[in-house]
Amino acid sequence: MRTLRRTPVSDDISRTRVEPFSDGVFAIVVTLLVFDIKSPNLGDPQSASHLAYGLAELAPTFVSWVISFTTVCVIWLNHCRLFDLIVRVDNTLFWLNANLLLWTSFLPFPTALMGDYSDNPLAVAFFGSAMLLASIAFILFRLHLQRHPELLREDVDLATFRAGTVSTSVLGPLAYVIGIGCAWVHEALSFAVYAGVVVYFVFPHAMRATRRESE
Amino acid sequence: MRTLRRTPVSDDISRTRVEPFSDGVFAIVVTLLVFDIKSPNLGDPQSASHLAYGLAELAPTFVSWVISFTTVCVIWLNHCRLFDLIVRVDNTLFWLNANLLLWTSFLPFPTALMGDYSDNPLAVAFFGSAMLLASIAFILFRLHLQRHPELLREDVDLATFRAGTVSTSVLGPLAYVIGIGCAWVHEALSFAVYAGVVVYFVFPHAMRATRRESE
Amino acid sequence: MRTLRRTPVSDDISRTRVEPFSDGVFAIVVTLLVFDIKSPNLGDPQSASHLAYGLAELAPTFVSWVISFTTVCVIWLNHCRLFDLIVRVDNTLFWLNANLLLWTSFLPFPTALMGDYSDNPLAVAFFGSAMLLASIAFILFRLHLQRHPELLREDVDLATFRAGTVSTSVLGPLAYVIGIGCAWVHEALSFAVYAGVVVYFVFPHAMRATRRESE
Amino acid sequence: MRTLRRTPVSDDISRTRVEPFSDGVFAIVVTLLVFDIKSPNLGDPQSASHLAYGLAELAPTFVSWVISFTTVCVIWLNHCRLFDLIVRVDNTLFWLNANLLLWTSFLPFPTALMGDYSDNPLAVAFFGSAMLLASIAFILFRLHLQRHPELLREDVDLATFRAGTVSTSVLGPLAYVIGIGCAWVHEALSFAVYAGVVVYFVFPHAMRATRRESE
Repeated sequence: MRTLRRTPVSDDISRTRVEPFSDGVFAIVVTLLVFDIKSPNLGDPQSASHLAYGLAELAPTFVSWVISFTTVCVIWLNHCRLFDLIVRVDNTLFWLNANLLLWTSFLPFPTALMGDYSDNPLAVAFFGSAMLLASIAFILFRLHLQRHPELLREDVDLATFRAGTVSTSVLGPLAYVIGIGCAWVHEALSFAVYAGVVVYFVFPHAMRATRRESE
Repeated sequence: MRTLRRTPVSDDISRTRVEPFSDGVFAIVVTLLVFDIKSPNLGDPQSASHLAYGLAELAPTFVSWVISFTTVCVIWLNHCRLFDLIVRVDNTLFWLNANLLLWTSFLPFPTALMGDYSDNPLAVAFFGSAMLLASIAFILFRLHLQRHPELLREDVDLATFRAGTVSTSVLGPLAYVIGIGCAWVHEALSFAVYAGVVVYFVFPHAMRATRRESE
Repeated sequence: MRTLRRTPVSDDISRTRVEPFSDGVFAIVVTLLVFDIKSPNLGDPQSASHLAYGLAELAPTFVSWVISFTTVCVIWLNHCRLFDLIVRVDNTLFWLNANLLLWTSFLPFPTALMGDYSDNPLAVAFFGSAMLLASIAFILFRLHLQRHPELLREDVDLATFRAGTVSTSVLGPLAYVIGIGCAWVHEALSFAVYAGVVVYFVFPHAMRATRRESE
Repeated sequence: MRTLRRTPVSDDISRTRVEPFSDGVFAIVVTLLVFDIKSPNLGDPQSASHLAYGLAELAPTFVSWVISFTTVCVIWLNHCRLFDLIVRVDNTLFWLNANLLLWTSFLPFPTALMGDYSDNPLAVAFFGSAMLLASIAFILFRLHLQRHPELLREDVDLATFRAGTVSTSVLGPLAYVIGIGCAWVHEALSFAVYAGVVVYFVFPHAMRATRRESE
């Protein structure tokens, strides 16, 4: 799997280091999301009802956190499935992967922003935009693989891979564009759309569909 | 161990990436717990007695930290032992694992909350509830494995595995429910229960019992 | 690849642990950079225009973040390519690697500083100095390898490796010294230089040049 | 290297997961140390001299950071060398390793404390105490291995291993006890002792001595 240096493909990067590096980034993002949830300040530190009220006020932060956590898991899962089809990582693919990691590692900021300003349409739209950029990063990644099938495993069927790219390019981005638009109608609507995307990807039938496409 | 794609089990996720990803999450949670312990503010920065007093006031934070650190180690150890019995990770198992990681990565928040409001019954009960959710996540994980023994190694005895699930389902959750209840009597009682669970799992004889069950 | 103990090279450190440790540090640095971008404080929490203004004010922070993220990716990539040529890690090389990790892990501080004080020449020059120290760490690493070719793979041509060290020693440090100088003329000029270095390393032709040298 | 389950040693934990988990903790600690260095607040944000003064005031924080970073690297290196001699990890060894990780992951707190209150003898003594606890954790780890030589590789000479434990038990702890004592005379004296320990371990001759002992 590892190509020898001095051959024409010698600027390849070892897949055995790109995968753990990416896994590290995903694991850290997923774990650090909770650190933006801060203990509420209480008038009376010993009062259970004060704390209950303080925790209830954090509700949008908890919802943002669960959505982001699950979204990063979905990204990680898609990353896993894509890398499973790859035999070589060239320089461009490395940077397209770095681009995906950039937007994934950015998610804690829009998550915190949406948690802090859950009534602000721009904060909610901003969250959707960050998600949109992450899903576009995936499309660019797939397009490069399509144009360079020598990076893919020999048993990958290009026609079905291409079909997978088309459906990936339409479904995710479309949902996020709708979510961004909804923010200007009502913020809760966007929350529902973002949560819907995640639920769609977590449920097995959706997964099975994605698999059929990518094979 | 890695199944070929296009076979009926082709939506499996490679165990070789699920394990390091999970290890990453556990390692980060365990390490970040200390970052919620903040330097005390001192009236006189150069006074040793002021600092001694400031550190003494942090005592419940230190206790919360040690309990959480050890609990995450126990979770990691159980995770290790369970994955040792697994040969394949299907889509549902992946998400049940993600659910376990979700509640584990959540622990720094209730830990900080209990450290900040150690005299507030709700803060102490909230900590127990988070632990309860993490232990329920383990039970769901085991139940799925029981219903899909094809994910387990061939030499795993299902009867003893099932017995292990029953004892896991009773012991941990029961202890946390008691701990949650105790919070409304006296917070220190809950601390003792939470610490007790950890001590039970750290001591070898408990371990040996768990092993006998899971084999 | 792993030398046996009790042989004359027995104080070698296993490459199989130095690489994941380093990857861990790079992955954490790259992911944590975003945590220095804090939600802006808004006069009216529900006003989209207030938030838009708040986000616009964060522009230099976003630019610092992208530059640092990409720089750490470049460092990681160079680290990958260098370790690909290495068969053994001796004690000195371990500490030269630790020195590189020290300056890499330091980057979040100058990044935050430059984000906070983008109009302060010293903040911008300080960022360049940290980058300069990281690139000097690379040179020291390469110089040790040159003096101890027994640590390198047998098929590495020392003449081309030396040529690579020379060009590495001139290009990166020179650019950062220029960037540091520019800070005292205009801060935006330094931003351009720092961004330029990154763009130079990301673009494939630059990569190809580097590769040709290091082989 | 991995023992089969159902044999008398079946509660062993796979070394292949303990090592990456530990590496993860070390990598995170080492990287997060810098996050306790906060941008100084400036009267005039654009003034280079204000910033220079602000950075100069952070000097003890920088020194604490370099000492802690290097100390964690030394701990990681010793951890590496010890695990190199180990073939099996039993339940007790797992928890002794967790104990070592506990004190290592604690270091960011005393580091921040010593940075914040570098003129406070207790803060400086507290840092030494945390180091002392980490070095005691190492001794406990070695003592368990001595009593259970079946966990060690067959070619490890127990007599030299024991001699190594003795010198480890005396050198490190003694230095930290002296450092703790010095804090009550003058804080800078303790800084010098802590830095001295690190320098001693970084320099090759010290390393060579340690190696000779542990082999």
